[in-house]
Amino acid sequence: MTGFRIDRRSLLVAAGGLPLMASAASAATPKAQGQPLAGKFNLPDPPKERMRWAVVGLGSFAVGQMMPGFVASSHARMTAFVSGSPDKAHDLGARYGVSKFYDYSTFDRIADDKEIDAVYIALPVALHAEYTIRAFKAGKHVLCEKPMASTVAECEAMIAAARAANRQLGIAYRVHFEPNNMDAIKRLRAGEIGDLRYFSGEAGFVANPDYPPHKWRLRKALAGGGSMYDIGIYALNAALWAVDEAPVSVSAVYSTPANDPRFKEVEGGVEWRLRFPSGISAQGASSYCWTYATRQRFFGAEGSISMDPASDYNQINTTMQHADLTPVTLRAGNPAVQFSAQIDAFCMAAAANQPHQTPGEMGLRDIRIIQAIYQSADADGQIVRL
Amino acid sequence: MTGFRIDRRSLLVAAGGLPLMASAASAATPKAQGQPLAGKFNLPDPPKERMRWAVVGLGSFAVGQMMPGFVASSHARMTAFVSGSPDKAHDLGARYGVSKFYDYSTFDRIADDKEIDAVYIALPVALHAEYTIRAFKAGKHVLCEKPMASTVAECEAMIAAARAANRQLGIAYRVHFEPNNMDAIKRLRAGEIGDLRYFSGEAGFVANPDYPPHKWRLRKALAGGGSMYDIGIYALNAALWAVDEAPVSVSAVYSTPANDPRFKEVEGGVEWRLRFPSGISAQGASSYCWTYATRQRFFGAEGSISMDPASDYNQINTTMQHADLTPVTLRAGNPAVQFSAQIDAFCMAAAANQPHQTPGEMGLRDIRIIQAIYQSADADGQIVRL
Amino acid sequence: MTGFRIDRRSLLVAAGGLPLMASAASAATPKAQGQPLAGKFNLPDPPKERMRWAVVGLGSFAVGQMMPGFVASSHARMTAFVSGSPDKAHDLGARYGVSKFYDYSTFDRIADDKEIDAVYIALPVALHAEYTIRAFKAGKHVLCEKPMASTVAECEAMIAAARAANRQLGIAYRVHFEPNNMDAIKRLRAGEIGDLRYFSGEAGFVANPDYPPHKWRLRKALAGGGSMYDIGIYALNAALWAVDEAPVSVSAVYSTPANDPRFKEVEGGVEWRLRFPSGISAQGASSYCWTYATRQRFFGAEGSISMDPASDYNQINTTMQHADLTPVTLRAGNPAVQFSAQIDAFCMAAAANQPHQTPGEMGLRDIRIIQAIYQSADADGQIVRL
Amino acid sequence: MTGFRIDRRSLLVAAGGLPLMASAASAATPKAQGQPLAGKFNLPDPPKERMRWAVVGLGSFAVGQMMPGFVASSHARMTAFVSGSPDKAHDLGARYGVSKFYDYSTFDRIADDKEIDAVYIALPVALHAEYTIRAFKAGKHVLCEKPMASTVAECEAMIAAARAANRQLGIAYRVHFEPNNMDAIKRLRAGEIGDLRYFSGEAGFVANPDYPPHKWRLRKALAGGGSMYDIGIYALNAALWAVDEAPVSVSAVYSTPANDPRFKEVEGGVEWRLRFPSGISAQGASSYCWTYATRQRFFGAEGSISMDPASDYNQINTTMQHADLTPVTLRAGNPAVQFSAQIDAFCMAAAANQPHQTPGEMGLRDIRIIQAIYQSADADGQIVRL
Repeated sequence: MTGFRIDRRSLLVAAGGLPLMASAASAATPKAQGQPLAGKFNLPDPPKERMRWAVVGLGSFAVGQMMPGFVASSHARMTAFVSGSPDKAHDLGARYGVSKFYDYSTFDRIADDKEIDAVYIALPVALHAEYTIRAFKAGKHVLCEKPMASTVAECEAMIAAARAANRQLGIAYRVHFEPNNMDAIKRLRAGEIGDLRYFSGEAGFVANPDYPPHKWRLRKALAGGGSMYDIGIYALNAALWAVDEAPVSVSAVYSTPANDPRFKEVEGGVEWRLRFPSGISAQGASSYCWTYATRQRFFGAEGSISMDPASDYNQINTTMQHADLTPVTLRAGNPAVQFSAQIDAFCMAAAANQPHQTPGEMGLRDIRIIQAIYQSADADGQIVRL
Repeated sequence: MTGFRIDRRSLLVAAGGLPLMASAASAATPKAQGQPLAGKFNLPDPPKERMRWAVVGLGSFAVGQMMPGFVASSHARMTAFVSGSPDKAHDLGARYGVSKFYDYSTFDRIADDKEIDAVYIALPVALHAEYTIRAFKAGKHVLCEKPMASTVAECEAMIAAARAANRQLGIAYRVHFEPNNMDAIKRLRAGEIGDLRYFSGEAGFVANPDYPPHKWRLRKALAGGGSMYDIGIYALNAALWAVDEAPVSVSAVYSTPANDPRFKEVEGGVEWRLRFPSGISAQGASSYCWTYATRQRFFGAEGSISMDPASDYNQINTTMQHADLTPVTLRAGNPAVQFSAQIDAFCMAAAANQPHQTPGEMGLRDIRIIQAIYQSADADGQIVRL
Repeated sequence: MTGFRIDRRSLLVAAGGLPLMASAASAATPKAQGQPLAGKFNLPDPPKERMRWAVVGLGSFAVGQMMPGFVASSHARMTAFVSGSPDKAHDLGARYGVSKFYDYSTFDRIADDKEIDAVYIALPVALHAEYTIRAFKAGKHVLCEKPMASTVAECEAMIAAARAANRQLGIAYRVHFEPNNMDAIKRLRAGEIGDLRYFSGEAGFVANPDYPPHKWRLRKALAGGGSMYDIGIYALNAALWAVDEAPVSVSAVYSTPANDPRFKEVEGGVEWRLRFPSGISAQGASSYCWTYATRQRFFGAEGSISMDPASDYNQINTTMQHADLTPVTLRAGNPAVQFSAQIDAFCMAAAANQPHQTPGEMGLRDIRIIQAIYQSADADGQIVRL
Repeated sequence: MTGFRIDRRSLLVAAGGLPLMASAASAATPKAQGQPLAGKFNLPDPPKERMRWAVVGLGSFAVGQMMPGFVASSHARMTAFVSGSPDKAHDLGARYGVSKFYDYSTFDRIADDKEIDAVYIALPVALHAEYTIRAFKAGKHVLCEKPMASTVAECEAMIAAARAANRQLGIAYRVHFEPNNMDAIKRLRAGEIGDLRYFSGEAGFVANPDYPPHKWRLRKALAGGGSMYDIGIYALNAALWAVDEAPVSVSAVYSTPANDPRFKEVEGGVEWRLRFPSGISAQGASSYCWTYATRQRFFGAEGSISMDPASDYNQINTTMQHADLTPVTLRAGNPAVQFSAQIDAFCMAAAANQPHQTPGEMGLRDIRIIQAIYQSADADGQIVRL
């Protein structure tokens, strides 16, 4: 299946070891001389050794965030575009040096394309299952955008297809590869704020029905759900990452504004609570009716960590406080690397035949919980056992 | 009834008008000369015109926060101390120029004391009702610490006693007089963040059973309840202040750590959700198991306001954000003035025979809701209608 | 000389020891009972034991900041007002319970007033020397506002008068008693940022000739100097506090806007540099032409501390950074206590017959350096040796 | 000369116009369909249309910052590496798809290489002039790292060589292309803080003689100067950018620690002041003896802007304050784009036969001023006219 390979050196460099070194020489006079490289660099693999990707769906997120992520990655390169807009695909192809094109009717032919190792799916949610399964049938790895799919059944079918194809399925929870979120969880696990006692988080933005990338998000048949599916999943997933237990029950209510024409099919807002076996709870809210905000707070027995924004593309602000109430600003890296870091992590996992860090099972878990949230909210807050 | 009076000038100055002015003269040579005062000053009333107070209960909060508040106030002065510790009372009396002393058995004699207009009650919660009612029977105004009382019935009895005595009853929700909280609510009401869509807030600290002021808080018979009564009430009250509607239902769960010997009588933590007629919800949590934190966030259709800490004695940090995600720090005044401002507001209300801004009815409302929170949590989160 | 005394207990409490204690009793039932006070409280002395003060000059700073400071102090009380505006003095006297009044012609009669131990002088700068010397002749201690006086000769005469009277002379550098500034210097001395390498600081505001408290500041005969005298002295004094060496030379230039009618007598802005024996420099600037700002930064070999604002009445923001570039917010107390803390420190020093922490010698040092700054700026930046 | 071209569309997109558009279709059912791209994207040019670059000097900055910048750029691609370390060059070449290699003896052969349009020079400072002039002789454009060269004479020779070759010379002042710095200057120019009254700034880090990239910086023959050359130039250049006038004089002093073995050849620290025709001054400091800090503050008649850090690779924090002392956080973009933005700006300028935004003349100006700073500091702070 290969065509790409990630050598031992790359894996070492990614793990923080082995800087690139060359012959050293003392610069004694103002004469140009070779010097060894000092420091560690996450250098890209040679193009021929990188995993080759088809991008499926050329929307604003794929073009604005993920394509630069592929370009900046060490282990990946784009070799094919799949789109229903041939002009757009060819224009982007010329710009990115991509020369293979498929549309949705010819998609299955990627099975015969030796220059595609993996597929990144950035279609509306309702199409995730179909294209993921078709990609597995074509023998490719799949990194699929979040939320994983419209229904639990679809998620299960996707996982089964991955297994049948012996290929890896990752869900694009980019925040798991964002340095500041990783650092916050690492500190939590290391006990820097003591035992975790509570999580609260919010994620929302104002859905604008006139803005094309928002438009399909307001249609249940395409989006699978509303604010909770699209943006609320960030706070939910963060809670689950932090607590690291399977929740036992959920309760939730809607806060969709009455008579708002945007929300005929999907909810405009939902507030939720998860309970965990250890006795703690997490509470959160999502909305299509607030100004953009992504926030999360971890309350520990000995301190707390707050993030605001918590899941932005370009800025993540994190502070940690202890009993003395003096916030320490934490800066673990530039958030913008999350896109290439996610891609590289998937490449390395697939090359090692290991599950991706945010696998299909995580996507399924979250959809299952969101469905329980909807079930509770449909019943005006009644508790739903998981 | 008086003995104290707040003149028109004080009321004007408090309202932001009328600076103190004297005859002006141009300072032409380095010779000392009288000048009019420039600017507005919230000058104190002459001692004889101030409302005269008995402080009931000389614990750490009364001594550490409220006594300096009385000293810094414009319209109040302390004239009597009520305590079961005569040495402590006399020592403090000597320091504060207070020369009248009562204990809990002689308390009712304040009825005959012409130098007491009002009573401030800082006893354990379970004693609030008894002493409030006895103070009303003695014909005094009452400012009683939060939470108002252990039970709804006690709250109702306190309100009835105030009415019977034709005196004012205020609950010491100091945050309503804290400049930054007032400013945040003012901006909210003025539409600076658009319609309010959601509130979330937290309030907690680590209860230390070996620290005397915490000790009684862990005993239900004295404290009335646990973290929700003592500290969680801040976030709850803030939510109600912000939303400005009567909630229709509540759901809540406990997060008291299992087997923690501190929490045999009261809860160690509770997470709650209120629903309001307009369709929005508020979520919050209180705890005796986190490091100290008081936080609240108002999410509006066009912006958000965050406060952390939100109800500290000395520091309140507030930021406002709009769609451009650039936080504006809001600074509306030094939080430390909240104690004297609360006292002065009560004095002015009582002098004008008007209800205090945070009256008994507010205290009752909050106890009623907290009882519903407990009821829901006792039933593992079942919804309780209000 | 006394009439006031600060007992051993007060000194112990001020030093952080000995909380007020009374008989303890376990609160077993909901019955009011006496309890010992828990925690440490900086309780006020009984009025009769406090140092008695005459306030000279009842301008906006004295009324707005220092009178509340006297009221909140533990060791001081105001007993007399000295003013050329009898109406204002009597009005304030009634409000503050002060019943002794002097004007500038009767001032020397304070010598016979047994109820005045000390004098606080808040007159325009050019009058500081005269009234300080007259107060010493009357046998009183003197706390005089900064800047100490118009000229070095005046400062020297003030110090000589204090010595002759065997009384204490303090200059009201309030920031030395502000918790956050104290904390920053303490951390610096403790080596938390390594050796100090550089100081930079700024202090300025927009002088408004139509606002009475600004008016005299623009007249050299009253103010002694311009922005450097009034506000720039904060950054200068902070530099000297931090570096803790006597500077060897100074260079400075003016930045007074050309043709600005406000600055016919005093400078509108000045930039300065001090050099110290150890080889390091401090740079700063003052201005009457910026929006209000007071900032200072300490650069150390291993970290840095930044304050902005650094010398405000109500808010001081301090952050410390080390090599990891993650700012730690430092919060050492409410800045508003600086006024009463300064007064109390002076009272304790005078009671112990010890020099005040910011004595006349410090005031003289700063005026000497400011004069050198002016001398250098008059010569367009030429170096002036000290 | 071309081989690369930047078409009208690219120029329009860079100017903020013309999003990429394709045929639109309404997504009515869960079936994958083409959609037009919504929003504006700064899409890369097709590889063949991009400007082709040789990178001269493969040190840690070139490899760690600029190579990812070239990869992320829209208008550039790397085609050749010039290095004295063939192993390093070939390893990097394989990784970046670069297949042309030169060393310092074969460098002049680039004249015959049609696949090189421009040269980026990242050698030690003392080599800038030689390689810039050789590159111009070879007919290439040159983007040369800051500081421009060791001496004013070298700078002048470089400018002359550019003119003789009719090619563009840019100095790599990356901060001019960093979104937050650009935004701050834009706000300043737009009058958002009123007339600029003062600038103060600092830039420093701890020079570590054992860390190879620091080693040559401590040798005058290679570095041209010390902290002022390498890091202090950021604060100096920012002051000149902000004030936008040619300074009339400079004064400066050294603060190099005595007996520090690192500073036998270059200064360890210098404090400087520039005076400008309009009467204002700028003050700053650079150091090799502080923990890393890059800060700058603009003081205006109506407000101020502070940046800390001001010239970091990954984080720039900017706040603006007005008279109400409530800081507004300004976020104008991810700082990390500065590297590719600088490269793209140079490409567009060269393609349009226009001078780069930070041309050789700016580099010369700064070296001239730094030499005056050294001259003043050598004379212990004496004023040097410019």
